[in-house]
Amino acid sequence: MSFHPPQRTLMGPGPSDVNPRILSALGQPTIGHLDPSFIQLMDEIKDLLQYVFQTKNELTLPVSAPGSAGMETCFVNLIEAGETVIVCQNGVFGGRMKENVTRCGAHAVMVEDEWSKAVDLEKVTAAIKANPNAKALAFVHAETSTGVQSDAAALCALARAANMLSIVDTVTGLAGINVDVDGWGADAVYSGTQKCLSCIPGISPVTFSSRAIDVITNRKTPVQSWFLDLNLVMGYWGKGAKRAYHHTAPVNSLYALHESLTIVKEEGLQASWDRHLHNHLALRAGLEAMGLSLIVDEADRLPQLNLVGVPEGIDEAQVRAQLLEQFDLEIGAGLGALAGKVWRIGLMGYGSNSTNVRLCLSALETCLISQGHGIKGGDAVAAANRVYAG
Amino acid sequence: MSFHPPQRTLMGPGPSDVNPRILSALGQPTIGHLDPSFIQLMDEIKDLLQYVFQTKNELTLPVSAPGSAGMETCFVNLIEAGETVIVCQNGVFGGRMKENVTRCGAHAVMVEDEWSKAVDLEKVTAAIKANPNAKALAFVHAETSTGVQSDAAALCALARAANMLSIVDTVTGLAGINVDVDGWGADAVYSGTQKCLSCIPGISPVTFSSRAIDVITNRKTPVQSWFLDLNLVMGYWGKGAKRAYHHTAPVNSLYALHESLTIVKEEGLQASWDRHLHNHLALRAGLEAMGLSLIVDEADRLPQLNLVGVPEGIDEAQVRAQLLEQFDLEIGAGLGALAGKVWRIGLMGYGSNSTNVRLCLSALETCLISQGHGIKGGDAVAAANRVYAG
Repeated sequence: MSFHPPQRTLMGPGPSDVNPRILSALGQPTIGHLDPSFIQLMDEIKDLLQYVFQTKNELTLPVSAPGSAGMETCFVNLIEAGETVIVCQNGVFGGRMKENVTRCGAHAVMVEDEWSKAVDLEKVTAAIKANPNAKALAFVHAETSTGVQSDAAALCALARAANMLSIVDTVTGLAGINVDVDGWGADAVYSGTQKCLSCIPGISPVTFSSRAIDVITNRKTPVQSWFLDLNLVMGYWGKGAKRAYHHTAPVNSLYALHESLTIVKEEGLQASWDRHLHNHLALRAGLEAMGLSLIVDEADRLPQLNLVGVPEGIDEAQVRAQLLEQFDLEIGAGLGALAGKVWRIGLMGYGSNSTNVRLCLSALETCLISQGHGIKGGDAVAAANRVYAG
Repeated sequence: MSFHPPQRTLMGPGPSDVNPRILSALGQPTIGHLDPSFIQLMDEIKDLLQYVFQTKNELTLPVSAPGSAGMETCFVNLIEAGETVIVCQNGVFGGRMKENVTRCGAHAVMVEDEWSKAVDLEKVTAAIKANPNAKALAFVHAETSTGVQSDAAALCALARAANMLSIVDTVTGLAGINVDVDGWGADAVYSGTQKCLSCIPGISPVTFSSRAIDVITNRKTPVQSWFLDLNLVMGYWGKGAKRAYHHTAPVNSLYALHESLTIVKEEGLQASWDRHLHNHLALRAGLEAMGLSLIVDEADRLPQLNLVGVPEGIDEAQVRAQLLEQFDLEIGAGLGALAGKVWRIGLMGYGSNSTNVRLCLSALETCLISQGHGIKGGDAVAAANRVYAG
């Protein structure tokens, strides 16, 4: 029997609400992955990705798999067995980076920070000093598990000053906050489609500096993944090159990515960041009006992903279940060290709008009241409205 | 600017024409990868994949990436460094298997057959005898580069008799010809969505025997790919298990896969195979009527992928270009050893129908005549019609 999904509002950590324009693009008739029209689409996608990543990097392309594969693309191409990588961990995804490093047969030096805090630059400086021969510094710019942003510009500068490569996770960052690949001097950056690009999940945009390309093309050993080996993938995605078959591209998903990038460019990067910030401030006002608080320090907050502390005596899972059943509204649970302690509320891409802010606040208020939390209905939305009224 | 693809007829080696029902399913609103409705969809997909693979294997699921990643999933999970794998090569994809083996740090013993011939059982028997400690026998059931099918039942039996695992590529086989995983006693089998399932490209269905699961769960070393590590993926896809987040599933692509599998089940496997065979016979009659010949021995031909020898004096690339420009019809070029010598004409899934057969025959006839090939127009379609008339 055919499947018909319920109509949800997606305000978790991603996937986020997909713009209907993107769903329409997705469902267009499939063409071949070597069709001249498709080659043109690929060129346009590369140009658009350069725009959103703010880079002139030639090697900028969408990996044909989810963000985790984008992460793996960076590590397996840049790192060889026996090498050392400094990995900053302040959430789930730093831990996943460590897994990637060790599965390359390399050594991970961990720089640990509390979950919900930004990466500490002094600790990183010390780790670099203690491991001057490390090949790379890896960190998460926008931690999807904690809603924290770290100082990517400063971290990339530390890496570069020590002649190390920088590997940057900005799965949740791209198009929601400033991602300035060339300005940072970052070497390898990966993202995802299902966050602030408002596209369907399953594709991972990546970009590599010329310094990174030199490393990839001069490896001593073959890349351990055939599927993710950029030396081979470049033969298909390389501009101007004869497009040699490597694997069959996910044609329809790339229609969707193209449309989502086109939408970002139509709005403009700065306008997109401003919108994410504005809706975050309205949500925050509403949350605070009902006595809830954001757990991340103000300076480190990601506007597109808000970590809200669960009040005493409230069953967080039951609230999420009620939101889904009664309001068709999805918000996220805490992960890892934050499991059971927080909700993750996303305002990403197309979903970063005042309708979603108001829906979320009023629905959450209803759930808290139904669990006996002593708040007054209506205050939250009113507080958000005051922000929107300027 | 938004991209609008041309309306092609896809009769190459894949992607094949996608059923409009599947495109509609694809474009439905995205829901979360942990949504209860999505979990139900996942269970249904697993059941449907068991049906098309003809298996009761519990570990049957779609890998969130194209067929090449499905291949890699099999090798990186089953093979460890230092082990030996016997790899049969009679086309491009056996060579890719070899790459996978060596990138696992393992040793590939190659059994080579001519491209366009089936895997020779006697050579395999000799290789097994010479390498009794090999861990696995890997072969391609349906070679997408040559249109050849090999005897999967016999090859799996040889592996099992020698206490080796069997790893089977049936990317182009599934739903087009009999793929009988349990009947064969195969241990690891991977396929693709963009061939006889008529689904969009980007997903790779795989299935593993309980013997294979034992090997995966008892490895000495971690799987070198975090993204493809089935020990982790099972936590998300495992039935009955608490669905633990591993990576964000490609939600919309799985809507499409579900619909495509539903369509196969509605038709029935035997009916699907019969249809592929019938249209193949009609195409063959038409090709022969215009003096063209299929290069694969009759007994080894894949009905869904027909390798046609390019006649003397014909520029094969120009014919393909003319087909695309004048008829919006895509057929495939030869790969590797067969480059420049053959066309690959697919009749896969939804695209295996009499309209496509007639279109292809008449369009090809037109192109050959325009290149000065001395054939008479109309003969080819007439020959196909005689097959359809019974």
